[in-house]
Amino acid sequence: MIKIGVDAMGGDYAPKEQVEGAMLAIKNMPDIEINLYGDPEKIAQYLHNPERINVIETNFVIDMGEKNPIKAIKEHPDSSMAMALSSLRKAENDAVVSSGATQALIAGAHILVRRMPGFKRTAIAPVIPSLSGKPTILLDCGANLEIRPEHMLQQAYFAVVYAKEVLGREYPSVGLINIGTEDGKGRELDKEVFQLFKASDLFSFYGNVEPKSVLDPPCDILISDGFTANIVMKTMEGTASGMGKLLKQKLTSSLMSKIGALFARKALKDLKRSMSPEEIGGALIYGLYRPVIKAQGASKAYGFYNAIRQAATIVRNEVFTKVEHYLEATRQAEADE
Amino acid sequence: MIKIGVDAMGGDYAPKEQVEGAMLAIKNMPDIEINLYGDPEKIAQYLHNPERINVIETNFVIDMGEKNPIKAIKEHPDSSMAMALSSLRKAENDAVVSSGATQALIAGAHILVRRMPGFKRTAIAPVIPSLSGKPTILLDCGANLEIRPEHMLQQAYFAVVYAKEVLGREYPSVGLINIGTEDGKGRELDKEVFQLFKASDLFSFYGNVEPKSVLDPPCDILISDGFTANIVMKTMEGTASGMGKLLKQKLTSSLMSKIGALFARKALKDLKRSMSPEEIGGALIYGLYRPVIKAQGASKAYGFYNAIRQAATIVRNEVFTKVEHYLEATRQAEADE
Repeated sequence: MIKIGVDAMGGDYAPKEQVEGAMLAIKNMPDIEINLYGDPEKIAQYLHNPERINVIETNFVIDMGEKNPIKAIKEHPDSSMAMALSSLRKAENDAVVSSGATQALIAGAHILVRRMPGFKRTAIAPVIPSLSGKPTILLDCGANLEIRPEHMLQQAYFAVVYAKEVLGREYPSVGLINIGTEDGKGRELDKEVFQLFKASDLFSFYGNVEPKSVLDPPCDILISDGFTANIVMKTMEGTASGMGKLLKQKLTSSLMSKIGALFARKALKDLKRSMSPEEIGGALIYGLYRPVIKAQGASKAYGFYNAIRQAATIVRNEVFTKVEHYLEATRQAEADE
Repeated sequence: MIKIGVDAMGGDYAPKEQVEGAMLAIKNMPDIEINLYGDPEKIAQYLHNPERINVIETNFVIDMGEKNPIKAIKEHPDSSMAMALSSLRKAENDAVVSSGATQALIAGAHILVRRMPGFKRTAIAPVIPSLSGKPTILLDCGANLEIRPEHMLQQAYFAVVYAKEVLGREYPSVGLINIGTEDGKGRELDKEVFQLFKASDLFSFYGNVEPKSVLDPPCDILISDGFTANIVMKTMEGTASGMGKLLKQKLTSSLMSKIGALFARKALKDLKRSMSPEEIGGALIYGLYRPVIKAQGASKAYGFYNAIRQAATIVRNEVFTKVEHYLEATRQAEADE
């Protein structure tokens, strides 16, 4: 049995959507069981079928707007998030899903789960929609403002294993986010990463990719440092939601357009769903001891179901073990030199 | 009379759209005259009304895909782009508009127009659409990969003058593009810029702005270094065009949606126009001796008209003179210290 811990109290619609997502996951995956961390009374309101679902009582919820995440995690080991994270080192779960405050989750993961041996810089890697229907991995959207090319090589390798084992890509290729497609473009970091990736035989390196093609990239993985990829992700979010609002504005501006919107309702819903993070799951934190998945704060049951499914696939297909083997081999090779 | 030089041969639809844009500009602005740089025979095909329009013969066109822009500009002083740019130092024009190859235009502007005295790093500043209908200035989308906070202060001041004089904002405010809204977010550069802008009384500083609100920002101007702002611009382009394609896909997927699209045709056209750079004009290069505006390569007549109108407004409202006065005062203050 694969055991997934779910922080049932973090996120905008807790615990209703978490509990419903967990029940949906249990229904669809016979090889998992779920530990829900949260308030048993509140959880009981929504838990209609407790088959393979345990509830672990927790007494605190870390606020979504928490200003001092490190302090919050340290002072509240009894919070749903901290208890879920702590379960990983104790082997009580194989993976954890939370839609709680991002910074607290990252801080908590570093303190309570800690890194995979040899993995230098963790990364946050959401999976973003693409026109082809085959989503793209975008990293690092998270924490590392200062990073070295060797760290990005580890992160890219992790993404490649993930793309193979979870997204089912046979030969995943990596593109470097840059301001131009030609060799030699970008900052010093970009030039160094380019050379390192080009020289490596760990994976197929596509070269530089401009974010003009962010929804239709020529590769499976888009990588940059933790500042730039975060800016890309937030610009995508801003543009997509802005255009959505503008479309709504325009479609309600006249009787004709309202009629049009009515006829095209299904198509417009499809568009919204194509751009929705719920379809894809959460963002995995790369390089921890065990998988921690950040689901969107606004996730509904279907979003949690997808994040839990993603966690189960990561465990089932031994993504972490495969990366560990690579790191072990690297250490061995370095020791032999 | 305000004299505008137009590179009639650069861009995807030259010289037709340039010439038609010029005639439209002449028709709407009684105080301008236009010098068209290009092939007189080709221009004559479209120039139905030569009132206040002169044609200056040029014998070469710099290719849109030019790989070595500096070499191209230096070896072809007889090109439409080089001739137009050279006219500024000779006071034959007050401003130049070109939709030729971006890198060649930037290189050419640096070689043939040169910088405004005291302005340290030129910037490229497109004006991007916003939900409110009041466009936002985004900079630096151009050339400077390595930049110092003082340089960004000059660029921000330029943007503020531009926002006042060209966009008609009474109290333009500046936001720093960042990965979080809290003080102290971002890289070393961002933290230094934040402190410098906060301490300055040159303009109203809003603070950090996440690109989640890129289409609906709480300020008139969004600034970052030349790598980051370029990434923001290209991600916006990629997301907008990707969503446009997806919308089209969905709207042609069934008979119902096709009927809907028919009824909503005007609304959908409006949406496309709202997101179009043509509505707004071109990107001004900040910090040159005289204004050079880069119109989109794919600009049509209306796009050129808007870029020419933008150039005329810059000249009419003495944007460059105002920035020069500030730089002069800064130099004076530094000398007095």
